[in-house]
Amino acid sequence: MSILVLGTTALDTVKTPSGVRREMLGGSAVHFSMGARHFTKVNLVAIVGSDFPKKHTDFLTRKGVNLTSLIVEKGRTFRWAGEYHGDLNAALTLSTELGVLSVFKPRIAEHQKSIDNIFLANVDPDIQRHLLSHMSSPRLVGLDSMNYWIDHKRRALLRLLKEVHIFVANDAEARSLSGEINVFKAARALRRMGAPIVVVKKGEHGVIVSCKDFLFCLPAYPVEKVVDPTGAGDTFAGGFMGYLAGRRKIDAMSVKKAITFGTVMASFNVEGFGLERSCCVTRSDLERRYRHLKAIASVC
Amino acid sequence: MSILVLGTTALDTVKTPSGVRREMLGGSAVHFSMGARHFTKVNLVAIVGSDFPKKHTDFLTRKGVNLTSLIVEKGRTFRWAGEYHGDLNAALTLSTELGVLSVFKPRIAEHQKSIDNIFLANVDPDIQRHLLSHMSSPRLVGLDSMNYWIDHKRRALLRLLKEVHIFVANDAEARSLSGEINVFKAARALRRMGAPIVVVKKGEHGVIVSCKDFLFCLPAYPVEKVVDPTGAGDTFAGGFMGYLAGRRKIDAMSVKKAITFGTVMASFNVEGFGLERSCCVTRSDLERRYRHLKAIASVC
Repeated sequence: MSILVLGTTALDTVKTPSGVRREMLGGSAVHFSMGARHFTKVNLVAIVGSDFPKKHTDFLTRKGVNLTSLIVEKGRTFRWAGEYHGDLNAALTLSTELGVLSVFKPRIAEHQKSIDNIFLANVDPDIQRHLLSHMSSPRLVGLDSMNYWIDHKRRALLRLLKEVHIFVANDAEARSLSGEINVFKAARALRRMGAPIVVVKKGEHGVIVSCKDFLFCLPAYPVEKVVDPTGAGDTFAGGFMGYLAGRRKIDAMSVKKAITFGTVMASFNVEGFGLERSCCVTRSDLERRYRHLKAIASVC
Repeated sequence: MSILVLGTTALDTVKTPSGVRREMLGGSAVHFSMGARHFTKVNLVAIVGSDFPKKHTDFLTRKGVNLTSLIVEKGRTFRWAGEYHGDLNAALTLSTELGVLSVFKPRIAEHQKSIDNIFLANVDPDIQRHLLSHMSSPRLVGLDSMNYWIDHKRRALLRLLKEVHIFVANDAEARSLSGEINVFKAARALRRMGAPIVVVKKGEHGVIVSCKDFLFCLPAYPVEKVVDPTGAGDTFAGGFMGYLAGRRKIDAMSVKKAITFGTVMASFNVEGFGLERSCCVTRSDLERRYRHLKAIASVC
């Protein structure tokens, strides 16, 4: 019972109304790992530069993340800098330095190729496809992307969509890729385009899951002070996919529980800068918020 | 078991991507009545001009709405014209003709003064207060308002807030009146300002209820084709308050059920122009969507 996540490992500089943090450990694969590690063994596939601080690899190892397939390449680590204003709903990117990410070709250790739960976090769809083609027995494959790839590598993304079980997108991405304004129609269109389960993330407005047999809408966990939303979507995906990785059956009940755990994990993420809060969550913190969210969302 | 609603009776001209309708029956008190009539006897307090078509009063009477306190004043009926684009989330007001609404002073029939469930739909807070002062035994009072009054009659509105049990606002209004950006904080602040139960409507993103003993978040009913959202908030309030009017206890269970019925009623409203769809809802339509929404929103 383990999961493999392909994505980015980054150094993030973030400014929000709560303050500034420079060169924090971040990236989609890292945030995903924080969400997933409570439920399953996480294997990270990413690239960092030779400047990547040892304290970060030590930290990830301490958190139980397997780094066998983390490439350390000569050069600089991928860096992102962004800023949030007002209600913190949208990030303003200040700078992006790809560094070694521009030459990233995932290399997976032989013994990891049989891992059957896979999450393709947001990187170039060609890299996502390349990785997937090396996996010997995919049982559950999740896919994330972003507007840049929807606009610039649409065909590659659409082709990949047919090979995955779950597509995770925010509402703008779902609308853009499907061409539908209505979010429920967008989700159904994306299912017709290939992924049997479509998860649409709406940030503070919660999440929608559309699949053949059921529809599920869950509000976000009520957070009164959002400190830094960077990585919330990846942490959500980690909780969601991590929980499913440990389930034998992918059905309405397991998907709903997975979505709820993902939502709870994302709520911890936004309460601190970077991994500050999400890295220290205990299983009982998780369970407490799960019960609370269930009570808040349950119709009598 | 009945409810009295103070509000507007209007002739609405609406343009949406689905088409145009001219001078339809509308107004906050009318939409509210469509939501509430399934649960309780509705008594409407409003004003129309001498040009108000008899077919509309006949229609309301047929729908069981008591029009004893509907004033017919010499002059023109209140008219509103608006337009919706894109995802239909915001109305663009094209014109407002107050007509007789500018001289509105509610007059309530003597036998209606003892009605103990009251909804003060969006009109001038001074008029809302005037009406409330004439009610002999308020048991449950709901209040709605709008940004115009928040900006121009803030003090009158804040005073009124202390005299009601439930305040219903959309998210922008809740933020504006409370001065809090975070919607959960805004709801709590509004409770401190007077109303023990605060309902924040977020349109397609559902609704939040904040009160001392519990928090409840419900997604909107999934509607794939929104034809005309005019009056959705009032129809919601009608279903919500109408259901509560028939309950002995106002507790977590009755409030959650009321919110769910309100949400369902609003979903019918947006599926047609004006009252086209909401006026023809049967009790079994209501129950069916209630069960569906419950399934969609329930965490395992």
